[in-house]
Amino acid sequence: MLPFPTLEEIKSAHVRIQSFIHHTPIMKSAAINEMAGCEIFFKCENFQKVGAFKARGAANAVAKLSEAQKKNGVATHSSGNHAAALARAATVAGIKSYIVMPSSAPEIKKKAVKSYGGEIIECEPNLKARETTLQDVVDRTGATFIPPYDFFDVVEGQATCSLEMWDSGIEFDTIMAPVGGGGLLGGTALTSKYISPRTKIIAGEPEGADDAYRSFKAQQLIPMEKPNTIADGLLTSLGLLNFQIIMEYVDDIHTVSDKEIIASMRLIYERMKIVIEPSCAVPLAALLKNKEQFQGQKVGIILSGGNVDLGKLPF
Amino acid sequence: MLPFPTLEEIKSAHVRIQSFIHHTPIMKSAAINEMAGCEIFFKCENFQKVGAFKARGAANAVAKLSEAQKKNGVATHSSGNHAAALARAATVAGIKSYIVMPSSAPEIKKKAVKSYGGEIIECEPNLKARETTLQDVVDRTGATFIPPYDFFDVVEGQATCSLEMWDSGIEFDTIMAPVGGGGLLGGTALTSKYISPRTKIIAGEPEGADDAYRSFKAQQLIPMEKPNTIADGLLTSLGLLNFQIIMEYVDDIHTVSDKEIIASMRLIYERMKIVIEPSCAVPLAALLKNKEQFQGQKVGIILSGGNVDLGKLPF
Repeated sequence: MLPFPTLEEIKSAHVRIQSFIHHTPIMKSAAINEMAGCEIFFKCENFQKVGAFKARGAANAVAKLSEAQKKNGVATHSSGNHAAALARAATVAGIKSYIVMPSSAPEIKKKAVKSYGGEIIECEPNLKARETTLQDVVDRTGATFIPPYDFFDVVEGQATCSLEMWDSGIEFDTIMAPVGGGGLLGGTALTSKYISPRTKIIAGEPEGADDAYRSFKAQQLIPMEKPNTIADGLLTSLGLLNFQIIMEYVDDIHTVSDKEIIASMRLIYERMKIVIEPSCAVPLAALLKNKEQFQGQKVGIILSGGNVDLGKLPF
Repeated sequence: MLPFPTLEEIKSAHVRIQSFIHHTPIMKSAAINEMAGCEIFFKCENFQKVGAFKARGAANAVAKLSEAQKKNGVATHSSGNHAAALARAATVAGIKSYIVMPSSAPEIKKKAVKSYGGEIIECEPNLKARETTLQDVVDRTGATFIPPYDFFDVVEGQATCSLEMWDSGIEFDTIMAPVGGGGLLGGTALTSKYISPRTKIIAGEPEGADDAYRSFKAQQLIPMEKPNTIADGLLTSLGLLNFQIIMEYVDDIHTVSDKEIIASMRLIYERMKIVIEPSCAVPLAALLKNKEQFQGQKVGIILSGGNVDLGKLPF
């Protein structure tokens, strides 16, 4: 077993990154509660710095670098939000960042990385190309690799999101998050089970990128081969650290179709008047698909990010 | 001169409607502040009940009805948000509402009126047809007509929005609102000049529906003949009561093109991750067009509503 961040470590991470992130609000919708038959508290990480919870893990990882490491900067590969988050965290800390991005990444996410001061190195849109290109960059620059999700410091940072939810004083019966690489879900599960062991942790995952669901059921890590879903933030395969956390602390994973994701996404736009990216809508879709299971509960849902190409909304 | 609501009356209205409306949040965007060269506080009435500030005026007008008036219900004509707001306010008070709507009104707004329990009577999309159809409804049902903007109780209700802004403790140098019929602008100007006479009140108006601008400059009420703008909430002509308030308390009106409105709308979606309707983006467009005038200021901008047809976003 790999080591997991403890509650004390997560609390220290929150203090460490506090001045670099937003304490995001929790929002509610009477209309959605009525449809769902439960009381939902949406933690709005779409309002987070760089428009996604990824700001937390990246800020934490950069803040924990040694002075020697800072000299050569940081590097990563990411299809999007981690890229922008790491570029911003590095710039704020006055160090360089090298971001390996698939050439197929949405234009809005490339633009964001550049605007935050990151240097983009493009590669073919597959995991192998990402990894070899990243290795070249690290060899050339001496930068420290900050993985997008399967990394202690990143999980510790993402765990601060649910820490803020618990600080609100709401006694959640269930907390839901989307799962891609598993950094947010892993961090959420750790914090929540440390603070409230009775609270259920349930993930939502797209049917077209259901490696976490299959891994969870098979109790062994099964990588995703050809993911295909509108939820572009969840295309990545689950990491080993996060798989171990999930097997210990997550209660269930529900899958949903792209059609269900789009319907929930539209519902959030129409009823809550907020902009979210498709990945964000996955937990609500999972709740509405299985709503008998949540009747009368207090449910926390993490809205993970709001970086969507507005010219390509699916409605 | 028509009588204007006093500060005491506006404060009483706020107490009267408090349990029927949301105390909406104020949001900020570091990115937009940097572009604008000033500090902008967005009052988010897109998060208001029925998705617009109109919930305030309608709730106030219904709460002020006599018991005798309540028996026959209320009626109005409106191209949208006032319709939904009055339907909801009536249903919450347990009375009937008859809503005359132009057949060309956006589907999302008709659906909203129905879902709030209003009875829709469709008419041709012109002011004359609206007025005669409304008169028929009033004659037939005995309902009390609640005008959408040029009405004491409605202006008094809309004025509670800026009252909440002043309650926040922020010392605004300028407050901006869009102007269509003038209910929000009039109410905002009253509250703000009563509380802080030094604060500038500046409106934004679409070039294609610029009757308030022309009336303000000519110092006489000039009705709008053929309005044409993407800001569908601002098609109506300025009312007499609001014209009088504006002549006394508004400092300036700036016009903007539809292209500028769309650019500001997109900026708010991308940077603030919130859903607004085009009318909402008009004050920010006016600020960005005249930004030298606002340098270093604290500017309050009322985001008036979020009821947009998501299938027809202009980007």
